[in-house]
Amino acid sequence: MVEHMQEHTVRSYSEDLRRLRESIERMGGLAERQVADAVTALVRRDTGLAAEVVQRDAAIDALEREVETFCIRLLALRQPVGQDLRFIIAALKVCHGLERIGDYARNAAKRAIVVAEQPPLGSLNGFQRMARMVQANLKDAIDALVNDDAAKADEVWANDQPVDEIYNGIFREMLTFMMEDPRNITAATHLLFVAKNLERIGDHATNIAETVHYAVRGDSLPEDRPKADNSASAVVRPLA
Amino acid sequence: MVEHMQEHTVRSYSEDLRRLRESIERMGGLAERQVADAVTALVRRDTGLAAEVVQRDAAIDALEREVETFCIRLLALRQPVGQDLRFIIAALKVCHGLERIGDYARNAAKRAIVVAEQPPLGSLNGFQRMARMVQANLKDAIDALVNDDAAKADEVWANDQPVDEIYNGIFREMLTFMMEDPRNITAATHLLFVAKNLERIGDHATNIAETVHYAVRGDSLPEDRPKADNSASAVVRPLA
Repeated sequence: MVEHMQEHTVRSYSEDLRRLRESIERMGGLAERQVADAVTALVRRDTGLAAEVVQRDAAIDALEREVETFCIRLLALRQPVGQDLRFIIAALKVCHGLERIGDYARNAAKRAIVVAEQPPLGSLNGFQRMARMVQANLKDAIDALVNDDAAKADEVWANDQPVDEIYNGIFREMLTFMMEDPRNITAATHLLFVAKNLERIGDHATNIAETVHYAVRGDSLPEDRPKADNSASAVVRPLA
Repeated sequence: MVEHMQEHTVRSYSEDLRRLRESIERMGGLAERQVADAVTALVRRDTGLAAEVVQRDAAIDALEREVETFCIRLLALRQPVGQDLRFIIAALKVCHGLERIGDYARNAAKRAIVVAEQPPLGSLNGFQRMARMVQANLKDAIDALVNDDAAKADEVWANDQPVDEIYNGIFREMLTFMMEDPRNITAATHLLFVAKNLERIGDHATNIAETVHYAVRGDSLPEDRPKADNSASAVVRPLA
């Protein structure tokens, strides 16, 4: 009887962990889609899609609360140690990161609505490239978590530099648009913040990868990762 | 003998929790100072102080790692439940929030260095007011955590609206400076991001307050707090 109970406990514990993995995967999928749709809405000037993105953010917030409550219950009831404990702590951190990514996507979508009402500014190709990169990093980071794949996590962790480089390019481009014509200022300012949102989403993907590395291996990655965002020091000379 | 051991275990556990509170308090103090100094550096065009803020951020990052490792050890060794478990989870979330606040302060300091090299733009009074408000909220939120004071946490939680209002004012002011003279664009853009950093710091203070409420009371605050940041939809007409 005792043996049966233990077996039952063991089975239902691994069941709990599987459920946790699935929830994080679902949350990750939602977040990816929000990022993709926000940038599609921006590039196509599709205010309807942008409004959908704004509305759908509540689903990610709700999932975050669910995952957090579930993790705390697991900690209290299962008293996990070792890799299980690290995985649950990682899940807590990752679901918080995904909630933040959702917020950035929602903010980008709000700005897409304003930008659609302003005169168009260039091709916005950089935004699509940036979005595709951060989405791929986000997907790989979540896959790494779900599959305990530290090697994949390390790849994502080292991969953020191109995102920062596109961001720096967009930053300078937008400042130049502003210098050229004051009528560009409203759109270019909001686009600057959209680019910043995408850059932050990329940072969160990197952080998720760092968390996965820790969860699987039990040690930390070096403190400084390759970082090429120097936009905080960017100066563009006015044309006048 | 067994009794003595238990007493010892109990004493050293509460000792651990006391140490955790102190670390969070120290981290909070550092973060507050970073915010204050970053904005002082900006307003006084003091690039030396700004450089100090940039350098000092590493201390907050190191503390975050320390607190996180300590929390995970506590979870593994003490197997806490109930309010202790909630407090440790809260400490994990809060130390992560403080690390983010440190990053925003560092970014603001970097931008202060660039802004100091550009032609001055108005009085920057709004930045000082905003900084004072978010600092006060941050201090109160950390005090609430350290003293298990849910009522104080709820006050902070409801208090973010004036910060958002100043932010909206700065957003419009900066866009107007840009429209007036293209030579203002570099400084005004960096100032926009500094204002955004302060607004995000304010959000983090609010989130810390929310976490404290949960840690003390065991329930959550309503999902939507009063929120007045509408800058994502701001439009300023060009002067031309």
